[in-house]
Order: sequence, then structure tokens, then C-alpha cells
Amino acid sequence: MKPNSRNIVRHDGVITRTDRERLLGQRGCVVWFTGLSGSGKSTIASALEEHLVRQGRLVYVLDGDNVRHGLCADLGFSPEDRTENIRRVGHVAALLADTGTIVLAAFISPYREDRQAVRAAVGEKEFLEVFVNADLATCESRDPKGLYAKARAGEIPEFTGISAPYEAPESPALVLTTDKQDLSESTVSLQKLLEERGYLSPPGLES
Amino acid sequence: MKPNSRNIVRHDGVITRTDRERLLGQRGCVVWFTGLSGSGKSTIASALEEHLVRQGRLVYVLDGDNVRHGLCADLGFSPEDRTENIRRVGHVAALLADTGTIVLAAFISPYREDRQAVRAAVGEKEFLEVFVNADLATCESRDPKGLYAKARAGEIPEFTGISAPYEAPESPALVLTTDKQDLSESTVSLQKLLEERGYLSPPGLES
Repeated sequence: MKPNSRNIVRHDGVITRTDRERLLGQRGCVVWFTGLSGSGKSTIASALEEHLVRQGRLVYVLDGDNVRHGLCADLGFSPEDRTENIRRVGHVAALLADTGTIVLAAFISPYREDRQAVRAAVGEKEFLEVFVNADLATCESRDPKGLYAKARAGEIPEFTGISAPYEAPESPALVLTTDKQDLSESTVSLQKLLEERGYLSPPGLES
Repeated sequence: MKPNSRNIVRHDGVITRTDRERLLGQRGCVVWFTGLSGSGKSTIASALEEHLVRQGRLVYVLDGDNVRHGLCADLGFSPEDRTENIRRVGHVAALLADTGTIVLAAFISPYREDRQAVRAAVGEKEFLEVFVNADLATCESRDPKGLYAKARAGEIPEFTGISAPYEAPESPALVLTTDKQDLSESTVSLQKLLEERGYLSPPGLES
């Protein structure tokens, strides 16, 4: 999106993202969990958060449920509102990662194009797409918030997987199959991914 | 604003804000700089950022100029768009402070009611309103971006102080009179304010 105004000048302070990352001894990034409602996104994000904070990492869970009470409280679940919701969240995730924080974002985010826009906002290298994959029957049997039951009863229109589409990632950084893997396996895979990509180390002096 | 949807449940992870604040040895808050264009908001925010980061504090400058390229790129400068801009920024500042970061937000934010909404989003105790006060003539003579000249020429409609109102804070935590105080005096006052309010110490075990 192009800024809706000229007369905007970027301020660049003396302090950079790299300064903050050195201070924290880690690198800011966005781990983006996408998948159906009930697939386990928030559960995995919370488990990883706990695991990493216990190691002294600065981690923050950004979650559809809590953002919708504030920043996106004006938005519903139509395709346009979902796109705007993910657009805003993507920019917020980018700002949070810019502080040096490891951001764990858990959003159904059903549209491939919307996730691509987040990738662009965050930066290709700092965006780790994680597909939390569980089949619809499994998600529906879990139904932690009773939403599938409501959707089947026609009480929730445009419910992802029932009456609205879900577009699976084409080349995610990681796939977690939550109807086969247990939570600790997922946490270990994620820790490994973050280590391999260098996010659990301070930035090199070259950067 | 009330959420535009039912079927939203808040997720509360095991990790709390206090855990992150202990890890950082500081407390998250929002220092909100308000004042006319050219009053010195961004300059002061950058100076304070540098001062605090050199002390090992995690600090982040949130700035009208850079937010308007991303999160608020769809908004202009009409009264409605300014209000929506500040509403979104307020929620983002609240999320950033929730990581434990000391947020330095520099926005003209001319409407008292909009700043009150930010205060409510961030939390009364964690919101420190700082009035960056310089008279219009001083701001206009500085005119770092050439905006006053354009506004006087009628090229920018609804320019704060010229053709749009500025509502000064009624009881700010601090007033910085930038046509009388120099930058280092302002930085010292701000450091003192943050110390007095306890933001430069880890949270007490009671919290």
C-alpha cells in the first residue's frame, strides 16, 4: 500500500535494530503460525513462549483473539475484514520484531496472498511461516471454543474450513502435524528452526 | 470500541508481562510526546532513546512518520483519519509496552480525546504524557520539513496550528519547553521521570 499522503519524511535515529538485538543477545523475527481453528496454533505458540522465556529469551505471543479486542476491534470476518486484520497484524508483528523480540503470531490467516503481504512487511528473512496442520475432522472434534458446532448450526457465517476457504502454505519453513506430533516434539522442532536460522544468537558484528 | 464479533476468547499463556519485565530489568511503559510539528518531539525521542540504550535499556521509538508508511498507510489527515491513526498507534504502543519495552511515541496527536483513548488502551499508570511545548512562531521558524511553508501557501489542508486545532494537554506528566530548554536538559528530566515512576527498575516481586 502506498502512503495516502506526501509530506512524510522517515526519521532515522542513531540507534538501530542491531543495537537492540545485541543488547538482547538474539535477533528479532516473526514465527507465523497458520492453520484451521483448533489446529493448535495458540497452544504451540504458548508452549514455545514458555520454553524460550525460561531460557531468558524475549518472546511475545501475538494472537487473533487478543488483537481483535483492540487494534482490530472494528473488523469482522468478511474476506475484506480478514485481509485488513492480517495486514494490520503483519505491520504490528514487524514493529515488534524490530525491537528485537521473537514474535510468535498465531492467526488462522486463511489467504495465501495476505500471508505474502505479511512476509513483505516483516522482511523475507525474518518471516518464518509455520503450517499447523491437522485435518478438519480432528480440529472439529477438538472444538475448544465450541465454534465448529456453532458454524455447523449456521450461527457463524464464513467460518474457515466449513463455509470459508483455507489456503495451505506452499513452502512453509516448517509443518507441524498436530494430530500426529505431540506438543513437546513441536517445541523441539521450533527451537531447532530458530537456532539454525540464527535467531537465538546475537547479530554478527558484520551486520 | 466494542469487538465487532462475539466468539472471541482471550488466551492467557503461562508467561506474563512481569516475567518479561524481570528478564529485562525494567518495566514497559509508553512515553507519549505530543506537540506541534517542529516542536521537537522526534528529536527528543531520539536523544532519549540513545541515552537509554547506552545504559542497556530496551527502548523503541514509534513515530508518526514511519507508522504512516505501514500500519496507517491507508489514512490521511482529516479529523476522522487522525483519530483512527492515533487509535491504532495507541494499541500498538500498548502491545509494544506489554513486551516490557519502554516505548517513546512521538505524534502531534492534536486531539485531547484521542490521547485519552490511548491512555485507556495503554493503562493509566503506564502512560506518561509529555507536552513538547514550543510556540507556533518558533516551530514555524524551524520548519524542518518545509511543511509550514507549504501550509501557509495553502498546499497542505488541515495543518495543525495553521488550519487545524491543537489541544494542549491539561495535566501532562512533564512539560518540555523546547524554545527555552536545551536537548540535554530535556533528556535529564525524562530520565528522572522514568526513574521516579519505577520504569528503570525490575518489577517488585509483589506484582
